[in-house]
Amino acid sequence: MFEDQNKELTPISKLGEFGLIDRLTGNFRINHPSTIKGVGDDAAVIGNEENLQQVVTTDMLLEGVHFDLSYMPLKHLGYKAVIVNLSDVYAMNATARQITVSIALSNRFPLEAVEELYAGIETAAKLYNVDVIGGDTTSSTTGLVISITAIGVAAEDKITYRAGAKENDLLVVSGDLGAAYLGLQVLEREKKVFEVNPQAQPDLEPYSYLVERQLKPEARKDIPELLSELGVVPTAMIDISDGLSSEILHLCKNSKVGCNLYEDKIPLDPQVITTCEEFNLDSTTIALSGGEDYELLFTIGQQDFPKIKGNPHLSVIGHITGESEGTNLITRANTKIPLIARGWNALQDE
Amino acid sequence: MFEDQNKELTPISKLGEFGLIDRLTGNFRINHPSTIKGVGDDAAVIGNEENLQQVVTTDMLLEGVHFDLSYMPLKHLGYKAVIVNLSDVYAMNATARQITVSIALSNRFPLEAVEELYAGIETAAKLYNVDVIGGDTTSSTTGLVISITAIGVAAEDKITYRAGAKENDLLVVSGDLGAAYLGLQVLEREKKVFEVNPQAQPDLEPYSYLVERQLKPEARKDIPELLSELGVVPTAMIDISDGLSSEILHLCKNSKVGCNLYEDKIPLDPQVITTCEEFNLDSTTIALSGGEDYELLFTIGQQDFPKIKGNPHLSVIGHITGESEGTNLITRANTKIPLIARGWNALQDE
Repeated sequence: MFEDQNKELTPISKLGEFGLIDRLTGNFRINHPSTIKGVGDDAAVIGNEENLQQVVTTDMLLEGVHFDLSYMPLKHLGYKAVIVNLSDVYAMNATARQITVSIALSNRFPLEAVEELYAGIETAAKLYNVDVIGGDTTSSTTGLVISITAIGVAAEDKITYRAGAKENDLLVVSGDLGAAYLGLQVLEREKKVFEVNPQAQPDLEPYSYLVERQLKPEARKDIPELLSELGVVPTAMIDISDGLSSEILHLCKNSKVGCNLYEDKIPLDPQVITTCEEFNLDSTTIALSGGEDYELLFTIGQQDFPKIKGNPHLSVIGHITGESEGTNLITRANTKIPLIARGWNALQDE
Repeated sequence: MFEDQNKELTPISKLGEFGLIDRLTGNFRINHPSTIKGVGDDAAVIGNEENLQQVVTTDMLLEGVHFDLSYMPLKHLGYKAVIVNLSDVYAMNATARQITVSIALSNRFPLEAVEELYAGIETAAKLYNVDVIGGDTTSSTTGLVISITAIGVAAEDKITYRAGAKENDLLVVSGDLGAAYLGLQVLEREKKVFEVNPQAQPDLEPYSYLVERQLKPEARKDIPELLSELGVVPTAMIDISDGLSSEILHLCKNSKVGCNLYEDKIPLDPQVITTCEEFNLDSTTIALSGGEDYELLFTIGQQDFPKIKGNPHLSVIGHITGESEGTNLITRANTKIPLIARGWNALQDE
């Protein structure tokens, strides 16, 4: 990334903390009338929006745990850090409004690198229409840390919790699953190739969708909007960050219900299928346990089925049962096996 | 701290992320009607409070940068991490309501250590009456990271910004200054003694106030309450985290004014004076540049002076002038010298 640039780089110490904050946040524009004061005081100030409740969520990303800068460009990292937080806002069926961004940096990062990171944050903030209203910038003795808090709003009767799924509700998922995890496998493989032969030029073309899903994921801002247009309020909703299986179990546990998930209904991109064959991986396992898809999983009453039927963004993948029936995968061979929570991290350890 | 306990310690890996979150957040109680949903969903949910605006602030603390676990007990650290955030809420003349707490931990921390940290967070949350509504728990490859976001509320006409100080306003500070920085110096000295002679038992009694201000600082929750009782709305306010000098400069810059600060008016605790003599330090320099005092600095119109006069929590330390007159310290010898921003970190590097 920034190491191969020839131009002279600026050490952050030259600017000092307040100079750095001014430089980084100077471009941020306030778009929402509810943002009364953004960066520049002891706290940001947010005005009431009549009849709307607020949702608040926070996520922290650490170098060496959540990202590897050897293949994650800083601009993408800034973008992704915003996305993972907004995904939680949309999972409440809410509209994102504001974020705060805290960053810890070691002195190996020159100003230009931090500006790349912030360019990614700014790009995501613009595209998803959220105001950056504050944060904290500090030094780190080791790796890079990014902590973001996202704030959104929704009417009380639209906010969708994990609890609320009822027997006979349909289980629906947006987009397709497993691609982000496979993208990581492709990047890890290329990193190993590069370590052995630094001259090797990776051909990532056959994996373009997978790599993009890993390095530049999007959050499903469109799904709460679509549901609102269709006149559908989900009975329960959660975002898929740890893998479909783990999220279904959360949703069922919180709602005190069981479910049947149909293997043949799980939406997979063609690149996921071909790459699973190449890597000798089972595509269902990848979709169930891969993680980082940032799709939305939700349940709707049967009466809402005609409203979503045939929508290319949504797949009905199962239905809710009584709690005593358990949480099951119905395989292509029509056998019923219990779902197990095996998130991204568990898979990594194998 | 926890290393010298004989009882068996529990590795965090035994519980897993969700088990850990359940264990740590199980004790947290929701007290505010505006907290509609706390920990346990994709996001927390906060209800509108009629006619109140919201303030949002965030701070991140890193091991090796902001704290040293060799003399900072984990319970105190958890407490302090909450305090530094609440201080920013009070600096807006607001009432704190909710916090989110994100933590990154390396596997050298057993469950019992993390519980200590959370006990400190819980103690502060109870005492300051804030609801812990969410957060993130993740692993770290190196040190401990704590990132907290605090949310508060205040009526629009009570919220106090850094900008707003007017010529002839009085400059007021709560409590006394410099003790936290001196407490750190005492602890650093004892750490060095301990490294040379691990049998040495430090006598911290003569420095009890200083050490407490460093290890267990309090935020001035009482000041917005007191000002409300007195019927005073400050024209500008900021909290003192980086040292009086730096904060005065922020306030004057944001308000586009100058000021005269009187050296002989700066409130000092007797322990600060005696310890400065012992360490051969100038107490005014320590008060101006020491930092971490978490007192509030604010300005009021002259007409409000009778309301605060003689209050033991408040000291009038100067007055606001025109911007062209600059920001000055009037010394005991009645000479006028320009204030320089030299925060805590700058002092540390000497």
